[in-house]
Amino acid sequence: MRKYFAEFIGTFVLVFVGTGTVVVGKGDLLAIALAFGLAVTVMAFAVGGISGGHFNPGVTVAMVINKRLDIKDGIFYIVAQALGSIVASAILSIYIHALNLTKNGFGQTDFTKLTAMQAFGIETLATFIFVLVILMVTSNKYGNADLAPIAIGVTLSLMIMVLLNLTGASLNAARSLGPALFAGGSGLAHYWVYLIAPTLGAAIAAFAGRLLGSEE
Amino acid sequence: MRKYFAEFIGTFVLVFVGTGTVVVGKGDLLAIALAFGLAVTVMAFAVGGISGGHFNPGVTVAMVINKRLDIKDGIFYIVAQALGSIVASAILSIYIHALNLTKNGFGQTDFTKLTAMQAFGIETLATFIFVLVILMVTSNKYGNADLAPIAIGVTLSLMIMVLLNLTGASLNAARSLGPALFAGGSGLAHYWVYLIAPTLGAAIAAFAGRLLGSEE
Amino acid sequence: MRKYFAEFIGTFVLVFVGTGTVVVGKGDLLAIALAFGLAVTVMAFAVGGISGGHFNPGVTVAMVINKRLDIKDGIFYIVAQALGSIVASAILSIYIHALNLTKNGFGQTDFTKLTAMQAFGIETLATFIFVLVILMVTSNKYGNADLAPIAIGVTLSLMIMVLLNLTGASLNAARSLGPALFAGGSGLAHYWVYLIAPTLGAAIAAFAGRLLGSEE
Amino acid sequence: MRKYFAEFIGTFVLVFVGTGTVVVGKGDLLAIALAFGLAVTVMAFAVGGISGGHFNPGVTVAMVINKRLDIKDGIFYIVAQALGSIVASAILSIYIHALNLTKNGFGQTDFTKLTAMQAFGIETLATFIFVLVILMVTSNKYGNADLAPIAIGVTLSLMIMVLLNLTGASLNAARSLGPALFAGGSGLAHYWVYLIAPTLGAAIAAFAGRLLGSEE
Repeated sequence: MRKYFAEFIGTFVLVFVGTGTVVVGKGDLLAIALAFGLAVTVMAFAVGGISGGHFNPGVTVAMVINKRLDIKDGIFYIVAQALGSIVASAILSIYIHALNLTKNGFGQTDFTKLTAMQAFGIETLATFIFVLVILMVTSNKYGNADLAPIAIGVTLSLMIMVLLNLTGASLNAARSLGPALFAGGSGLAHYWVYLIAPTLGAAIAAFAGRLLGSEE
Repeated sequence: MRKYFAEFIGTFVLVFVGTGTVVVGKGDLLAIALAFGLAVTVMAFAVGGISGGHFNPGVTVAMVINKRLDIKDGIFYIVAQALGSIVASAILSIYIHALNLTKNGFGQTDFTKLTAMQAFGIETLATFIFVLVILMVTSNKYGNADLAPIAIGVTLSLMIMVLLNLTGASLNAARSLGPALFAGGSGLAHYWVYLIAPTLGAAIAAFAGRLLGSEE
Repeated sequence: MRKYFAEFIGTFVLVFVGTGTVVVGKGDLLAIALAFGLAVTVMAFAVGGISGGHFNPGVTVAMVINKRLDIKDGIFYIVAQALGSIVASAILSIYIHALNLTKNGFGQTDFTKLTAMQAFGIETLATFIFVLVILMVTSNKYGNADLAPIAIGVTLSLMIMVLLNLTGASLNAARSLGPALFAGGSGLAHYWVYLIAPTLGAAIAAFAGRLLGSEE
Repeated sequence: MRKYFAEFIGTFVLVFVGTGTVVVGKGDLLAIALAFGLAVTVMAFAVGGISGGHFNPGVTVAMVINKRLDIKDGIFYIVAQALGSIVASAILSIYIHALNLTKNGFGQTDFTKLTAMQAFGIETLATFIFVLVILMVTSNKYGNADLAPIAIGVTLSLMIMVLLNLTGASLNAARSLGPALFAGGSGLAHYWVYLIAPTLGAAIAAFAGRLLGSEE
């Protein structure tokens, strides 16, 4: 049970801090990027020893593909991640209403200047890079267990700096779920892109990681 | 005596740097968040080996609950933290007056758009997460002693990024004390929220940490 | 082959993240500086164990001069770096067009307020310092293998903070190649400065590093 | 000779990056603070193994007082630091003139809203804290040699965030020397504050560090 709670609380903090910085804190590009990325870093330090610190269904899928996690745990991980995201958005929505910030949304991910295919492509690519970095820095052969949480979190921050104005920079089907449910509208209608593209990018990274030696 | 002085100087630096960046430096959201968080990080590196590097009565309460600190030391720690905060605000107030910045306040924490219950709730939640991270990254089983100061400080920064526009983001009864005394008015009248909520959040974290294995 | 792919993907991420933050993310000075620098950091953590993590022809030249890499590998490294930069710019150009951002360019490096000699001089100096730091922090005698990726990436960020308004802050002939090809015009006409100056600065650093003990 | 060159190049990079970010890069508070602080961090990683990585006459004085450095080396260190600062300002002044930025100054430290005594006091206090952190994180008993450069650089950044609007945040007689010579006027006339106060703060820290166990 501990490991499922670890995935719940980690994803909760990721969505609470990340979308909270967007909507409530109203941070600039760097603040938003660091909020999401460093939330992963600190929660990986805190509970990564329990669950591995995925906080992202795509990462969990990649770990199942590369046999670092069994499929039953993978399913419970993803359920815990989804719940963490929904609870974070539920709590934030109280404060978004209290401050009359609903017009700025709930931190949902969406694309308005891109076609769905363009959004799908860049989310897939960015998640591919993100998960490839994860697989390498946590690998036995090339990894560095102590510093992996820093490398992983910073990589997420960097991808967000490029993608924020394009797709809202999800790279994570759980991160997009809670905000989409509370925001509804276009953010919810486009959720399928954020469900499928990051998962696809992560799966491709699982295979690419093997070629680079991540499973040796 | 060394350990009490360590708590005094650590809390002094936290309040001097954090509220100094708010009022004198006039930093943006990220600058303010990093000022408070990284002040904890550097002082934990500097004197954490002497006192454990709490700089926060809630952390001290959690450590007493989980028997990592005896109650007598806990009381002296909290007195030292309170003094550090008051001295930092006293020194800063000289420069706040010299620059005619008193209209911007003294870096006190307050809430104007929330009910007291909403403020209480979010301070409790954020401190719960903060102290849970502290307990885990300093645990024997899951922790990383070398990098714990970084994880702890960054977690504080992240919580501040979400809470700054809500409650001023205290998470620390000592951090709010000095500025409240120099500011008076609403900041002082509302101090009870910042005295009780972070302490409650930390105490809950002490129990949650045990369930997650922080004391194994 | 793995090591050439490592140089390709590392340089790809450097240009994708760095110039993407400039043109698509529209970050401020600090965001842009950290984007380039931390891209080097994370990719050095991810694939530095495979190729050494150069992502920069100047670094490769310095490593060949100091016999840490043989000349045949050096040539393939530089080809892989050039390809990584071009592919990153090609992908970004799709999104730059989709958002109608072509008037802001493609993240190319150029100088408009300096003479070519002034631009040449400061690019040479900054790359000299950058590569000298690399040689020292990866040296057997004075280095720290675990933390070298952080020191290297941050040094690049610092140089960019000074040089961004002067020359666009390249320090890397590969980083400037892809954007110059897609931007054309003055950025392409001035590319020779960014091809030669960083390479020269790196070569001088190779000799200076020996005097400081980087090869002992 | 290597160690003197290490102090020269380290102080050169500190002043080049720090004051370059102020005047040429025109960074905001956080960018400026990180520029100075992280310049110390990276140069301590690069050449700290050679000279100890002082880059600051106050630090050198504290190390001589606590017998970690002999007095002859101390004198040469300070000369090397002064030269590094002057050469950095000389090179930057070429680009400050090229961009017609002379009206913004040369990154000199000065105080216009404070009395000399107020400026003296806060520079002394901030340097006291800075050097006390240095002595602790590099101590045998409480220190962490691997991460000390990070703790030291970040501490400098934090002090700059508070002091930038007060005194320009020197904490370092060498850092203020080069810019003062090129700026002349009030910056040069007030240089005595930046010569004496940081040195005094560092000397006090040397004694306080002993009480805290920095020399055990």
